[in-house]
Amino acid sequence: MSGWLAIAGLGPGDDALLTAEVREALAQATDVLGYIPYVARIAPRPGLTLHPSDNREELARARYALALAAGGAQAVIVSSGDPGVFAMASAVFEVLGEREEWLHLDIRVLPGITAMLAAAARAGAPLGHDFCAINLSDNLKPWALIERRLRLAAQADFAMAFYNPRSASRPEGLGRALAVLREACEPERLLVFARAVTTPQEQLITVTLGEATPEMADMRTVVLVGNSATRQVGRFVYTPRRAE
Amino acid sequence: MSGWLAIAGLGPGDDALLTAEVREALAQATDVLGYIPYVARIAPRPGLTLHPSDNREELARARYALALAAGGAQAVIVSSGDPGVFAMASAVFEVLGEREEWLHLDIRVLPGITAMLAAAARAGAPLGHDFCAINLSDNLKPWALIERRLRLAAQADFAMAFYNPRSASRPEGLGRALAVLREACEPERLLVFARAVTTPQEQLITVTLGEATPEMADMRTVVLVGNSATRQVGRFVYTPRRAE
Repeated sequence: MSGWLAIAGLGPGDDALLTAEVREALAQATDVLGYIPYVARIAPRPGLTLHPSDNREELARARYALALAAGGAQAVIVSSGDPGVFAMASAVFEVLGEREEWLHLDIRVLPGITAMLAAAARAGAPLGHDFCAINLSDNLKPWALIERRLRLAAQADFAMAFYNPRSASRPEGLGRALAVLREACEPERLLVFARAVTTPQEQLITVTLGEATPEMADMRTVVLVGNSATRQVGRFVYTPRRAE
Repeated sequence: MSGWLAIAGLGPGDDALLTAEVREALAQATDVLGYIPYVARIAPRPGLTLHPSDNREELARARYALALAAGGAQAVIVSSGDPGVFAMASAVFEVLGEREEWLHLDIRVLPGITAMLAAAARAGAPLGHDFCAINLSDNLKPWALIERRLRLAAQADFAMAFYNPRSASRPEGLGRALAVLREACEPERLLVFARAVTTPQEQLITVTLGEATPEMADMRTVVLVGNSATRQVGRFVYTPRRAE
């Protein structure tokens, strides 16, 4: 048996949003690794070993998966959403050079539906013009860099998507981000707080920047911020394709 | 029969990247509408009418699809990639308010794997940190706005994805974009020209900004630009999760 490693995206929650490619990799896997709630989405079966691990264990998980594949396993690291967007793919490449033999492994990244695009689809098309994606977690970067990016993104009139807007350990980040936006954008700017999209807990809240509060988000929320032209039609929020 | 409209993403090319949700909508459809090469990806079957139309016919296509759904059809508008990223979803919402009855239709946006994330997966994880997506076409916005966004995105040290980098009618845009990047970024900055990803014509070219030329792209290419920390390991390009 020749080992391989797939770094696969499970999409936002509903298995109807998995790709056939990811289903096939999971069907062939001997080992599935990932953060506990993501591995919990994988059905057990004979011949498959599940390796759930904690958050912030990304580099250890990546090394273990590479070692498994080097030993002949057919290993899949699962992320929710897309593995290349604030998820496990970068973590694997950060450690890949540590062992020469790992560089020659069969490694594939299998894309998935990332949270911001699932949320945008539910809301309408708020990311239908130029946009940016910003991780609001300051675990891996200084808050000053996040603020700088927010200011420049507002100047560029990008629509925006915020990942990890709020967690128990960093309750204040989103409030600071909203304060930066209030300095740079009009109070009528439209925001969508999209929680647990495509799951039974799904909740969408559309508000103006003037109305937005940090309590509208938790760790399962992605926040979408319109650009200056974003508007509502019926129950939908969208950003026109045209700009002046 | 109760009509509905789905605005669905076919992913970058390979049907293995379709979601089950999109497959199901296509299986139920009575009518499929879209740009000619995207509708060509749909297998004909009894009971299904295909409505291919030309590029730049987006608003007429949107109105026709809404009229079909209002008349009881089960209509699917197909985009390549994700319908909410430089594709048909915004076009539908731009015309949705033209008729009161359209506002009450059953309309769903079904996300797909967008080109930049399919390309990033093939390359490694170049969008593994904060990033932006910019449509380089100046059909619907002035070039000055594109240049302004490029400069601000470089200042923000975003990784970037360029959609529609080059077409026969606008051969000069990408050259101007590269010139803006050369003013703002170091010549060692990594770029990936990803053409026709997941199709038999797939081609990936990884170069530095100093080496990049507009001829490396055509209308089937998405261009990924790393941030200042983007690097290579083995055959992969990735952006570390950590930033200073």
